[in-house]
Amino acid sequence: MSAGEQRLRWEEYSGPELAARLTPSTVVLCPIGAIEHHGPHLPLNTDAVIAESVSDEAARLAAADGVDVLILPIIAYAKSDEHAWAPGTMWLSGDTLMRTLSDLGRSLSTTAARRLVFVNGHGGNVPLLHLAARELRRSYGLEVFTTTAFAVGAVKAPGGAGADELGLGIHGGAAETSMMLRLRPGLVKLSLASRSVPEHLAEYRLIGFHGKPVTFGWLSDDISDDGVIGDPTQATLVYGEAVFRASVDQLREAIVEISSFSFRPGEA
Amino acid sequence: MSAGEQRLRWEEYSGPELAARLTPSTVVLCPIGAIEHHGPHLPLNTDAVIAESVSDEAARLAAADGVDVLILPIIAYAKSDEHAWAPGTMWLSGDTLMRTLSDLGRSLSTTAARRLVFVNGHGGNVPLLHLAARELRRSYGLEVFTTTAFAVGAVKAPGGAGADELGLGIHGGAAETSMMLRLRPGLVKLSLASRSVPEHLAEYRLIGFHGKPVTFGWLSDDISDDGVIGDPTQATLVYGEAVFRASVDQLREAIVEISSFSFRPGEA
Amino acid sequence: MSAGEQRLRWEEYSGPELAARLTPSTVVLCPIGAIEHHGPHLPLNTDAVIAESVSDEAARLAAADGVDVLILPIIAYAKSDEHAWAPGTMWLSGDTLMRTLSDLGRSLSTTAARRLVFVNGHGGNVPLLHLAARELRRSYGLEVFTTTAFAVGAVKAPGGAGADELGLGIHGGAAETSMMLRLRPGLVKLSLASRSVPEHLAEYRLIGFHGKPVTFGWLSDDISDDGVIGDPTQATLVYGEAVFRASVDQLREAIVEISSFSFRPGEA
Amino acid sequence: MSAGEQRLRWEEYSGPELAARLTPSTVVLCPIGAIEHHGPHLPLNTDAVIAESVSDEAARLAAADGVDVLILPIIAYAKSDEHAWAPGTMWLSGDTLMRTLSDLGRSLSTTAARRLVFVNGHGGNVPLLHLAARELRRSYGLEVFTTTAFAVGAVKAPGGAGADELGLGIHGGAAETSMMLRLRPGLVKLSLASRSVPEHLAEYRLIGFHGKPVTFGWLSDDISDDGVIGDPTQATLVYGEAVFRASVDQLREAIVEISSFSFRPGEA
Amino acid sequence: MSAGEQRLRWEEYSGPELAARLTPSTVVLCPIGAIEHHGPHLPLNTDAVIAESVSDEAARLAAADGVDVLILPIIAYAKSDEHAWAPGTMWLSGDTLMRTLSDLGRSLSTTAARRLVFVNGHGGNVPLLHLAARELRRSYGLEVFTTTAFAVGAVKAPGGAGADELGLGIHGGAAETSMMLRLRPGLVKLSLASRSVPEHLAEYRLIGFHGKPVTFGWLSDDISDDGVIGDPTQATLVYGEAVFRASVDQLREAIVEISSFSFRPGEA
Amino acid sequence: MSAGEQRLRWEEYSGPELAARLTPSTVVLCPIGAIEHHGPHLPLNTDAVIAESVSDEAARLAAADGVDVLILPIIAYAKSDEHAWAPGTMWLSGDTLMRTLSDLGRSLSTTAARRLVFVNGHGGNVPLLHLAARELRRSYGLEVFTTTAFAVGAVKAPGGAGADELGLGIHGGAAETSMMLRLRPGLVKLSLASRSVPEHLAEYRLIGFHGKPVTFGWLSDDISDDGVIGDPTQATLVYGEAVFRASVDQLREAIVEISSFSFRPGEA
Repeated sequence: MSAGEQRLRWEEYSGPELAARLTPSTVVLCPIGAIEHHGPHLPLNTDAVIAESVSDEAARLAAADGVDVLILPIIAYAKSDEHAWAPGTMWLSGDTLMRTLSDLGRSLSTTAARRLVFVNGHGGNVPLLHLAARELRRSYGLEVFTTTAFAVGAVKAPGGAGADELGLGIHGGAAETSMMLRLRPGLVKLSLASRSVPEHLAEYRLIGFHGKPVTFGWLSDDISDDGVIGDPTQATLVYGEAVFRASVDQLREAIVEISSFSFRPGEA
Repeated sequence: MSAGEQRLRWEEYSGPELAARLTPSTVVLCPIGAIEHHGPHLPLNTDAVIAESVSDEAARLAAADGVDVLILPIIAYAKSDEHAWAPGTMWLSGDTLMRTLSDLGRSLSTTAARRLVFVNGHGGNVPLLHLAARELRRSYGLEVFTTTAFAVGAVKAPGGAGADELGLGIHGGAAETSMMLRLRPGLVKLSLASRSVPEHLAEYRLIGFHGKPVTFGWLSDDISDDGVIGDPTQATLVYGEAVFRASVDQLREAIVEISSFSFRPGEA
Repeated sequence: MSAGEQRLRWEEYSGPELAARLTPSTVVLCPIGAIEHHGPHLPLNTDAVIAESVSDEAARLAAADGVDVLILPIIAYAKSDEHAWAPGTMWLSGDTLMRTLSDLGRSLSTTAARRLVFVNGHGGNVPLLHLAARELRRSYGLEVFTTTAFAVGAVKAPGGAGADELGLGIHGGAAETSMMLRLRPGLVKLSLASRSVPEHLAEYRLIGFHGKPVTFGWLSDDISDDGVIGDPTQATLVYGEAVFRASVDQLREAIVEISSFSFRPGEA
Repeated sequence: MSAGEQRLRWEEYSGPELAARLTPSTVVLCPIGAIEHHGPHLPLNTDAVIAESVSDEAARLAAADGVDVLILPIIAYAKSDEHAWAPGTMWLSGDTLMRTLSDLGRSLSTTAARRLVFVNGHGGNVPLLHLAARELRRSYGLEVFTTTAFAVGAVKAPGGAGADELGLGIHGGAAETSMMLRLRPGLVKLSLASRSVPEHLAEYRLIGFHGKPVTFGWLSDDISDDGVIGDPTQATLVYGEAVFRASVDQLREAIVEISSFSFRPGEA
Repeated sequence: MSAGEQRLRWEEYSGPELAARLTPSTVVLCPIGAIEHHGPHLPLNTDAVIAESVSDEAARLAAADGVDVLILPIIAYAKSDEHAWAPGTMWLSGDTLMRTLSDLGRSLSTTAARRLVFVNGHGGNVPLLHLAARELRRSYGLEVFTTTAFAVGAVKAPGGAGADELGLGIHGGAAETSMMLRLRPGLVKLSLASRSVPEHLAEYRLIGFHGKPVTFGWLSDDISDDGVIGDPTQATLVYGEAVFRASVDQLREAIVEISSFSFRPGEA
Repeated sequence: MSAGEQRLRWEEYSGPELAARLTPSTVVLCPIGAIEHHGPHLPLNTDAVIAESVSDEAARLAAADGVDVLILPIIAYAKSDEHAWAPGTMWLSGDTLMRTLSDLGRSLSTTAARRLVFVNGHGGNVPLLHLAARELRRSYGLEVFTTTAFAVGAVKAPGGAGADELGLGIHGGAAETSMMLRLRPGLVKLSLASRSVPEHLAEYRLIGFHGKPVTFGWLSDDISDDGVIGDPTQATLVYGEAVFRASVDQLREAIVEISSFSFRPGEA
C-alpha cells in the first residue's frame, strides 16, 4: 500500500485497528443489493453487483481526495418480495431486513463512527431503508443516509436509449441492462432480452410507479409475464459506461457532502 | 336519502348491507393522519383533520359523479416517531402501524372489495404505507394505493406564500398552516407562529428531505428547536383554500382512475 | 369558549399548550370501540358510537364540575375476532391491539399526565384492556383504569325489556339496540331485527358468557346464524335513553373517583 | 389398576395408546398456577399447588362417575408480573404465556380431543386465559374453557373468617392461606402472617379489583408493603377444608357439564 | 427436617425466605424435559421423568455434601417439533421456549442467585439451551450451564446392550428404555417395543445425528415409521440402574464444579 | 466455459436459467461467516473468508467430479454476540439470523432444489444452524445440512502447533491464524499476536466449551482480555495449508455424500 492510500474495507481491519481509525466523521458505506429475478437476460445478482461496484469505485475516489470512508460487506439478500414468484429470487421479508439493519446500526453505534450510508441497488428496498434511517437515528443516535447506487436520472442516455420506455423502465430495462454490460458483460445474455413495457400505465395521469401522486402495491408478475419492466433491447455498453460514471460521480460527491453534513448550521 | 345519493361511510352500514353493496370496483378510502406536535400554532390533529376533510369532500364529489366509493374510519394514531420528543405526540411504532394496516387488509380481503386507498395526511407515514401496499398485494391479493391528502405541489401559492421556505416547509409551514386556516380556523394560533426554516440544508446539492438523491433519518428536534420546519407566518386563508381545492380535486380524480385501474391493459 | 369551560379534546390542543395543561391528576379518557358486524339492524360502528358518545357526555359533565379531564381520539378498530367471519368487520389481532395500547401508554408517559382510562364499548376488548392496564402500570408507571361505556347493569329496563333474553343479550340485543335508537336512530333498522337468544346456554349451571364460574372461547357464528346474541325486537327509545343516562352517570362519577384515586390511603 | 378405574394423566400414556383413547368428548384439563411471592407465610408454589390438587381430586371423582377426563402436566410458571418486584417470583410475560397456550392448543388440535379446560390457580392469569380461549377456538377449532381452581365464592367461611377483609382478600389472605393449611400444612408459616388489607380501596364506589365497574392496573407493591392483600391471620384448617371441598365439587360438576357442552342445542 | 438437611425445592420456600437463602454461589437447577411420543412402549413424559429424577437425586446428594443447591419446577413442555406428527406430543416452538427461558433468566437475575443449570432430558432441546445460555449471560449477567440428565456415554452397557444400535439409539432405544424400567417400570410396555434402527445412516462417513462433521435437520417420521430410533428390545433394568447411577453421579459432580466455577482463575 | 465445467455461483445465473438447472439432487451450499473481532492479529472477516474459501474450493472439486453443486452468496453478518463488546463486530441477534435463514429456506423451497448445506465458519452460529435445519425441514420440507468450513479436528498440526492450547484454542488461536496465513496473509499481523489460553478451564473435569458434559454461556471478554482464546503465536503457513486442505477435502466429500443422502434406505 502506497503512502496516503487508505484501506477501504471494514472487514479487513482487525477490531483494535478499526477502533483506532474510526471517528465521528468517518463515512461508513453499506452497499445493499438483492438476489432476484431480472428476466432471462440478466443475472440474479444484478442489483448487488451495481451496489458494490459503484460503492467501491466512489469510495476509492473519495478516499483519494482525502475523505475518510469505509465500506461494509454488502447486504446481498434483501427485500425482493415483488419477485417472490420467480425461481432464484432469495428474499428477506421486510421484517427480517429491518431487524438486520437495526442490528447493524446497533453494532455500529458502539464504535466512534456515526455516519452510515445505505448505498442501494434495488428499488424495492427504498421504503424500508427510509424507515430504518429514522429508526437508527432515534434508537442509536446515528446519522443515517440512504442513496441510490444507480443514478440513472443524472445521465442523458446516448442515442436516446430507453426513451420509449415511457419512464417505465424500472426493472431489467435499458439502463440497468446497459450498466451490467459495463460491469459484468459475461453475465448478460442480450439475445434473450425482449421488450416488456406496460404502456397502458403511462396513460394514468395520477397513478404510477413513482413521480406521480398515487402509487400502488405491485408484484412484477402483475405487470409483466417475464418479470421485466422496461426495454432491455436498447441497452448498449456506451449507455452503461455513462450510467456507471454518473452513478460513481454522484456517490463520490455524496460521500463528500455527508462527511461534513450537520443537522444544524456550523456543527459538523 | 335522495335518489343517486350514496351513503359513504363504511361504518354506518350494517354487515349484511355492506356485503351486498361491495364489489371489486368499489374504491375504499382509508384516511390516515397523525396525532403529533405541529408547533405552538397548530393542533395535534392537523394531519388527521387534513386526511379526513379531503377524503370526505373528494369522496362526496366522486360519488356524485357515480363512482362507487366508501370511506373507512380514520387511522388517527400513526407513525410520528420523529416528534416523539414533544409532549402530546401519540405515536405508534412502525411495527405496530404495519400490523394495523395488515390486519385491516386481511379484514377487507374477506369481502368483495378489492381496491383500498390510503389517503395520507402525514409525511412520516409514507414509507410504511408503501411497504404495506406491497405486503397487502402479496398476502391478500388486494389492489392497494397510496396517495397524499395534501396536494401542495399541485397549487401555485397565492402571493408567493412560502416561496422563501426554499422547499423546506415540510412540517407546520406555510402550506399546512394555510390548510388548517381553511379547515379549523379556531384551532390555529397564528400569533404564536414563527419562522423555522433550516436554510443551511438547502445548500447541500445532493442531501435533502426529498427530491434529492440522498435522504437522511431525522427527528424534528434535530432540525428545529420548536419542531416546526417551515414558515407558518406566511400562511393565509386564501392559500389554504387553494391547497384544499387542489387536494380535493386531485383525490377526486385519483378515485376515478383507481376505480378503473388494472395491472394489465383492458382488464379493469 | 365561555369562561370556565374546558376544552376537552386532546387532539385540538397544540403540543406546548397541552404540555402546560397536563398534570398528574388530569384524567385522560381513551374511548375504544369496534367496527364489527352487529346483525342486520345495527351499523358496524355501534360500539364505537357508544364509547364515544358516553365519553363525550360524561367528560362534559365532569368538566363542568371542575374535574380536569381530556378525551383522546377513539380507537375505532379493535379486537373483534369473534366476528371475523362476517363481512364488514375490520379487526385487529390481540397482538396488534396490545401493541397499540402499549404505544399510546408509552407516548402518554412522556407527559405529566398519569391517569389513563379506557372507556370501552366492545365486550371483546375486555381481557386485553385488563392485560394492558397492568402492562402500562409496570412498564411506564401509569395509573390505568378500564371501564365500560355501557352500564347496562346499572339500569332497570323500562317495561321489562330484554328480561327474556335470560341474561344472554350480549351482542346486538335489546339494550344495545335501544342505546343506538337513542344515539343514532337513523342507522337502526328495527324492521330487520329478529330474536336470536341461545336459550339452551342458560341451562348450564356453571358455564356461561360471564358471571358463571366457567367461561368459554366462542365466535359469534358458533352461537347464532346471524351473529346476533339477544333480542333486539324489544328495543325501545325509552330504554335507550335510560341506558345512556345510566352509562353517562356512571362514567361521570368514575371520572371523579379516578381523579382522586390513590393506591395507598391519603396519597392522591 | 382395578376394573373401571381410569388412568388420568396424559403424560403417562404412550402416544399410540393416547391416540386410541382420545375422543371429541374427552375433557382435557390443563392446570395452570404460578411461582410467585405470596407473603412470608406461604410458599411460592401456592397457586400451582391449588390448581393441581383441585384438578386431581375433581378429575378422580368425575372419572369415577364415568366421565372421560384427562389431566395435562401443569403450567407451573405463568403471568405473575404484578409480583415481579419480589425475589422468588419466576414469571412469564403475557406474550410468552400466550404463545405457550397457543402452542399447546395447536398440539392438542392434531389429536381427536376437542375440549380443553384451563383450571386456573392464579388470578393474574385470567385475562390471558380468556384471550387464549377465543384464540384457540378461532385458530384451531377447539372448545376451550376457563375456570378457577379456587371456588372461594361458593363457600361460606366458617366462623366468618375473612369477613373483615372487605372483599379485598385476593392474595395470600384468609381463604388462600386456609386452602394451603389443608393442602400443604408443612409449608405454611402462620406465625409470620399479618393483616394487610387496603381498606381505603373499599371506599371507592366504582373502582375495585373486580366486581365493580372500574378496574385498574396494579402491582402488589402498589397496594401493600409485603405483597399480601388480605388477612391471613384468620386462616383455619376448617375453612381450608371447606374451600377445597367446594372447589373440587364445582370443578367436578364443571367437568360433567363440559363433557356434554354444545354451542348449539342438541349437538354435543 | 433434621439438622443440616437442606430444603431443595425453590417453589416450597416463601419469597422472603428464599431471598435470605440465595447467594451468588447457590446452584439453581432447572430440569427440562418434553411431553412427546416415544414409541408404543414408553410414556410421553419419558424425558421429563428422567430430567426430574436425576436432578432430584443428584441435588440430594450434592446437598448432603454441603453444596448449596436448589431445584426449580421442571419445564415439562419443550421443543419436540421433530415429533409434532405424533398425537400426544405437546410441543413449544423454538421461539416460545426461548422466551420462556429468557423470562426465567430475567426473573432469576433479580435475586442474589447467579448460577443456573439447565438439566436436560430431551436431545431436541440442546441447541436452544445453548443459545439461551449465552443470551442469559449477555442480557442478565447470569452464569448459565447446560448439561444432560442422561449420561449414557458415561456407562458401559451391561451385557453389551444396545451395541448393535450402531450409535443410533437416540430416541426410545435401549438406554432410554432401560432408564425408564428403573424409574417408572409401570409405564413401560416392553412387549410393544420393537427394533427401529436406521442402519443405513451408519454407513455415511460424514453425516450423522451427532459426533460426525455433518448434521442434518430431521423429523422422527423421516427416519422411522413408529418414531422410535434405536432398539428398545435390548432394554434391561440392570442397564437402567447403571445409566441412572452414572447420570446422577455425573450431575452431582457437575453441581460441585459449577458451585466453584469461575471464568477467570481464582475468582469464584 | 470449457465443456464439462460447471458454473457454480447461484447469483450469476438468470432466474429462468437457474430454474432449468436445479433438480432435487442439486447440492446448494450457503457459506456463513461472521464479521467479528478476532484479536489484534486477525481481520474481522476471518470466519467469512474461511467459509467462502473452503466452499469455493470444495465446490470446484466436487463439480469437477460431476456432482451437481451450487454456491449461494455468503451470509457475512451472523451471530457474534459473544464479541458484541468489541468495536468492529457487526452482529445479528439470534432472532434476526433465524429469520434470515428461514427466509432463505422459504425462497429455496419454491425451486426444484431440496438440498441446502450451511457451510459454517463461526462456532457461535452452530446452535442456531441446528435449530434452523430442523425448522426448514419441518416448515418447507427441505433437506438441510450443517457442517463446518474448518475441519481442524481432521488434521494433525505440523510440529505439534497448538498442542499446548489444551483444546482451548477456539477463537483466533493457532489453527485459525494458520488458516488465515494461508488464505489472506496480507491481513494477518503475527507480530501483534499473543497467547491467551484460559488454562484453568482445562482443569474442570466436566465443564468445557465443548466435548465435555457441561457447557456454559460465555462472552469472549469473560475469558480473555483481548478476546482471543488460544495461542496464535504458534501459527504457521504449513499448518494453515494442512488445515485448509483437510477442510476442503472434508467438505468435498460431504458434498458427495449429501448429493445421494436419503432418510430411508435406497430412496435418494
